Order: sequence, then C-alpha cells, then structure tokens
Amino acid sequence: MGLIVQKYGGSSVADAEGLKRVAARIVATKKAGNQVVVVVSAMGDTTDELIDLANQVTPFPNGRELDMLLTAGERISMALLAMAISNLGHEARSFTGSQAGVLTTSAHGKARIIDVKPSRISEAISEGAIAIVAGFQGINQDTKDVTTLGRGGSDTTAVALAAALEADVCEIYTDVDGVYSADPRVVPTARKLKTVTYEEMLELAASGAKVLHLRCVEYARRYDMPIHVRSSFSNQEGTWVVKDHPEGDSGANMEQAIIAGIAHDKSEAKVTIVGVPDRTGVAARIFQTIADADINIDMIVQNVSAAATGLTDISFTLPKSEGAETTALLKGIQGEVGFASLQYDDQIGKLSLVGAGMRSHPGVTATFFACLSEAGINIEMISTSEIRISVICRVEDLEKGVKAAHSAFDLDAEGEAVIYGGSGR
Amino acid sequence: MGLIVQKYGGSSVADAEGLKRVAARIVATKKAGNQVVVVVSAMGDTTDELIDLANQVTPFPNGRELDMLLTAGERISMALLAMAISNLGHEARSFTGSQAGVLTTSAHGKARIIDVKPSRISEAISEGAIAIVAGFQGINQDTKDVTTLGRGGSDTTAVALAAALEADVCEIYTDVDGVYSADPRVVPTARKLKTVTYEEMLELAASGAKVLHLRCVEYARRYDMPIHVRSSFSNQEGTWVVKDHPEGDSGANMEQAIIAGIAHDKSEAKVTIVGVPDRTGVAARIFQTIADADINIDMIVQNVSAAATGLTDISFTLPKSEGAETTALLKGIQGEVGFASLQYDDQIGKLSLVGAGMRSHPGVTATFFACLSEAGINIEMISTSEIRISVICRVEDLEKGVKAAHSAFDLDAEGEAVIYGGSGR
Repeated sequence: MGLIVQKYGGSSVADAEGLKRVAARIVATKKAGNQVVVVVSAMGDTTDELIDLANQVTPFPNGRELDMLLTAGERISMALLAMAISNLGHEARSFTGSQAGVLTTSAHGKARIIDVKPSRISEAISEGAIAIVAGFQGINQDTKDVTTLGRGGSDTTAVALAAALEADVCEIYTDVDGVYSADPRVVPTARKLKTVTYEEMLELAASGAKVLHLRCVEYARRYDMPIHVRSSFSNQEGTWVVKDHPEGDSGANMEQAIIAGIAHDKSEAKVTIVGVPDRTGVAARIFQTIADADINIDMIVQNVSAAATGLTDISFTLPKSEGAETTALLKGIQGEVGFASLQYDDQIGKLSLVGAGMRSHPGVTATFFACLSEAGINIEMISTSEIRISVICRVEDLEKGVKAAHSAFDLDAEGEAVIYGGSGR
Repeated sequence: MGLIVQKYGGSSVADAEGLKRVAARIVATKKAGNQVVVVVSAMGDTTDELIDLANQVTPFPNGRELDMLLTAGERISMALLAMAISNLGHEARSFTGSQAGVLTTSAHGKARIIDVKPSRISEAISEGAIAIVAGFQGINQDTKDVTTLGRGGSDTTAVALAAALEADVCEIYTDVDGVYSADPRVVPTARKLKTVTYEEMLELAASGAKVLHLRCVEYARRYDMPIHVRSSFSNQEGTWVVKDHPEGDSGANMEQAIIAGIAHDKSEAKVTIVGVPDRTGVAARIFQTIADADINIDMIVQNVSAAATGLTDISFTLPKSEGAETTALLKGIQGEVGFASLQYDDQIGKLSLVGAGMRSHPGVTATFFACLSEAGINIEMISTSEIRISVICRVEDLEKGVKAAHSAFDLDAEGEAVIYGGSGR
C-alpha cells in the first residue's frame, strides 16, 4: 500500500504487445492496493523518426518547434497506454507534461525542471484512476511554450514527479534488472547490487554506467526519493538507489563494503597540448576558451615543467563528440598562447572504482593499481574523488582492466547476469 | 493588406515536399503585406495510422484518450510546417488548439466549439510572426481535457478562428479549385462558381457536395465570415462563399440566376415500413425510436391511407451506415406498432437543385421534372426547401439525371474542369 511512480522507457512500449505487457504490470501494481502514477517515453524509434522528418524540412529546426514536434511522441504512447489499461478494466487518464504541471526553464531541447505542480495528477489518483504522464517534456514557466528536457529526461520527470507527490518510491523500468557491480556484458560474473547510495550512483553515472542518467540521480538525492531500478521483463527485485546502505548491507557484498561497482567509458578522447609556456594565466586562457564554448572537460593533468625549457605539457579528456570543435578552438589561440603542438588521442578508455566504503579504506588505491599492473595495463592519467578512483588506459586494455579490478575486489557473483535487449530515452 | 486565415488539409501536407510547397505559399501571402494565420490538418494518413494503433491495443478506445492520441497528428504537421516557414526566413510559431484558445464542449470525438479566445495568436501576428494552428482540436472548457471536433473539424477551426480574429477572409485550400455547378467528375462541363451564398452552400453540403463541411458553413454564416475555397496546387481564384451574390453576379451564370448548382449523393438508403396502422401516435412512436438512437433521417414520405384497410406505408431515407441499426430497432417495435413488413433499399440516389434564385422563379420544379422525365428517370420521393429541390431515383439513373438537369438549366461551361487528387480531413 503506497503511492508508486513507475517509469517505462521507449523499448518497453515499442509496439502494441509491449504496451499491453506494461499495462498488465501497472494494473497488477494498482490491484496490490497502491496508487500508481506512470511516466512513459515515446514508443521505440518514434523520436528518431520525428527528427528525420524535421531534417527533411529544414537543416536547422527551430528549437521551440522541434520540442513541439518531439512531444507528439509521448502523446501517442501515453494515450495508447491509457487505452490498454482501460481495456483491462481500470481507469487511466493521460496527461501531457504541461497538464502534469512540469514547469521548466526556456532552454528548448535541454530544459531544466524548475518546479512540479501536479494537482491534476493528485486529483486523478485520489479518484482511483491511474495517471499516465508524458516523460521528457514540460512547459516554459514564462511563455507557456512546450519544452523538452533532453537526455535522461523521462527518468528525471519520474523522479521529479515522485518527489512532488511525496511518493514512496520511484520505479525506473529499464532493459537490465538493476545496477551491477560492473557492466555484465564485460564481466559475466557481475553482481546485481541490492542497494547503492545516491553518491555512488552519481559517480557511477558520471563514470560511464548507463543505467541511470546523472540528472535524475541528482534530483533523487536532492529530494531523498528512493529509486528502484528494475526490469520490465521480469518480476525480480532490482537495485534500490537510496541515501545510505541499510545496516548490514553495503551494496554488492555484505562482508566487503569497500567498492560498490566498477564503471568504464569508451566515449572520451584525450587532448594533449605540447610545449605550453609555464606562465601564470596560460592554463586559465586555455580552459576559459573551452568553457566559453560550453564544452565539458573531465580529467586534467599538467606535467611538472622542465626547468631547462620553462615549457610544460597539459593533457585533458573530454567527450569524443566535442573533439573536433575543441581542437579547432585551441588551434585558434595557438599563436597567442604560444604552445608547440596539439595531440588528439581517441583510443583511450576510462576505468573507475566507486564505493562509499573507500573513504575509510586507504588501501584501495594500492590494490587497484597493483591489479592493473599485474594485468600489464599502463595507467596514463589518474583522478579521484572521495568515493571514486578513475584511471585512463589504452582502450584495448579497458575490458581486461574491468575484469581484473572486479576480481581483485572480490565482486564476482556465483551465476551469470541476465541481460535484456533495447534501451529507452 | 489584411488578416488572412488559411486552412490546408492533410493531402496538401502529406510529405516534406507538400510542407515546403505550402510553406512557400504562406510566405508569399505574408510577403504581400498580410498578417497570416494558418490552420493545418494532420499529414496524409496519420490519423488513420493512429486509429490503427489504438485498435491494436483495444477494441473500444476511450474517447478522452483517443482524442489525446489523434491530436498528436496535427502537432506533428504544425511543428514541421513552422520549421519549413522558418527555413524560408520568416518567423512562424505553432499553437495547439488549447494554446489557440479553442474552447469546446466535452463530447470527445465530436466536440462543438463554444468560444475561441485567440490572445496568443493575436500576440504572435502582431509581433510579425506567422501563426500555425492545429485544426480539428480544442480543449474542454470545464475539464481542460483535449478534444477533437470530428468530421470537417479543421475547416470549422479555420472559420471559427477567422471569426474570432475578425479576419478579412478564411481561405480553405482543398483538392479542387472551387465549388462547381456539379461534380466535375460526373459533369465534365461543370462551371466553377465565382460566388455562392452561405445558404446555397449549406444546401449543397447537406445534399452531398463534399467540398465544404456543413458545420464550417454554418459557422461562417453565423459570423458572416467570407470563405474563399481554392486549390493549394494553383494560384487561380476559387469560389467565394459569402452572404449575398454581388450585384451583377449570381454565381454560375450572369444572365440566369436561378440555380447555383446540382448536388448528388449515393450514400443514402431508403427504408419502407409497409402496412402501418393509420392511427394517431404511430408515426411518432416510429420516429422517436429512431431519434433516441441518434440516427439522422433525411426525407420522409407517408402515402395516403387506403380507406378500405386503414393501413398506410411510410418511407424515409437515411445514411447507409445507419441502415443495419435502424432496421433492427424497427423490428424491435414491430409487435407493438403492428406494421406488416420492412423493406430496405440501398440502390437509391439523391439529386438536388440548389439556388437562391429559385425563390422568385416558380417554373423551376416543372423544368426539373420535365428534364428527368425526358431522360427516362422515375422520381421516387421529393423534398423541397425554399432554395432546394431534391428527388430520389434509382442509383444507376443518378449521373444521367445530374447531366440532364445541368443542361436543362444552362449551367454548362465552355471548357472542362480541372481536378486534383487527394482529400484532407
């Protein structure tokens, strides 16, 4: 008995079969005595098809109109899902982001949620109906124009709505049945985590784990909204993302509380600026140029300057998708800054250990580096936070590194993980 | 220079090519110095495809949810059309029925417009933008739920919006280039009318002419909003639907002002109730039964009762689509009413002459019946209004009758009419 918000991605509702399967699951939750609010993404490839249509009409779709166009996708899926639920004898009402009171900034295509005022949703569920809400969309608080939230938007809608409704839990249905100690496609013995803290989940998401988007976890942490990540293809318990590990359970492994999981990421590249004059303000000039273009960089390493030359090298990592723009920007200031040359390397991988227990276990770094060394893997860059260690290595060594670390920290489970196909937005 | 509302049907915006062509026409209207508001239908077969999806999920789609689903169609077309206009260097903003202030009754799937409060549209055009509005949809004044207007809905949206904005004209773009003195597919020498009055257009629409829907013409008459019916495939003047024929022009033919046009209709069937007791209240009982089922009947004929038997026959016409339900209802009251038998005839055709000039020309009926007689066509039923005469004949005689009347009233033009493909909603 409680108030449950469930979110289903596009792959779960890709066709009539999927819609009916999801409807049955929603009705089962309702029948168990819960009030149910459902957030749904657009069906399957609908969003991509709509973008294709826009590109047939213009190479530069207007942001306001692109959002108007794309929000048709959730409108279709939510209406069909409500019908499928009605067909099972339960009342369901669908609501657009605007009707659900999702108020956002004006940044079309990447709007941020400012507030959620779900009075129509509260009314619907108090009258015994199941509320179906369009994910990924909201309304500009000032202009009343329709907006979309960008990547991870539907998950964020679900968590924000759950927080506003003071729900007991936000269930995120995905194509895996929880959060694993490593990507099960790389480490078949990866272990499903019973719980993971918001902090750990944030570090995992930022380090390349794709199961939940950073924004949604940030939102959950801010409002302390428990997330239950689980599969829409099974009835198993998934992973709970919560404030603290419960007493006697520390994520993957009851005895060994240090590491929650290992994430890896092949989407980054490394830029090295060779022969930078070691003067005050030079590094600032370089990184300001990049920041002004809204490019997010990740790790930064500056070598100690060679005394003889007064020159140093600066390396940093960033998404490969930003590589071309970044190197062009840097070439633009080469004369002014006076560096010797640029190197661009997109054959790197990032390997991250994440765990709240790391704080009180100083030996983690040593164990980690030792296992990589034994596996013959060279570490090129290092960065750390309180509960994370990340290293950069060659991309071809990455999966070997994930496996080595997984074993070194005793994370291996008995059986093999179950993986399902597809992925939503 | 003025304020022009244009409406484009689904066949005009069926694909990217169509959207670009329509965008160019809109921009040309804007460049000529006008303020432009555009009402657009869903692209091509979108509506049918969405209904198919709904039927895959449930045999009985909920009305509220079906409207939510179908309104995604206009959302897609209007956003794409706005993009196509932006691509030509003009600002365009799209608006849903709700955003455009189209307030309706609660009857999902066949809502009626109660009021239009287009403040956002006025704001957009006063700022120099072109406003694109979703046809066919509105919002329930009380519940704020999304509604659709049913058949002819986009035309009605356009006229209602034009009236609320006090536009100079409402241009309805269709697949023919105007209103003709008869269906050009039946009478190749049919003449395009320069003007037709609201009353004539209402009678033509009610008699089977498909170019404009009854509701939209009713709305135009109520607010005296001139409609210009024209083709989106050409730049020719079409037909003006107005309050009165201008001085010296009386529609089809300057010299001969009697008949505006001839409509025909193959969609009706005739029910004959044989051997009805000629008692007070019996006819009322029969037609109340039919009215209670929301079935619209058209023409009614009751024979004079045969004195010897005290029995009479009653015949009426109705849409074929209502035939099965009606005969079932009548069989249900056969015992109570005590009629002998039912006959159902779906091989009838309706032929109608329409013209405001008929009022002052008493010879029309005689000329009409004479020409049908000469063509060997038997008249089975007759009904008249002030500006219309309709007869029922065998369906196989219908087109012959249309041609005969067209010639008898000197409506033939010099050349042949131009017909374009497709049709919108």
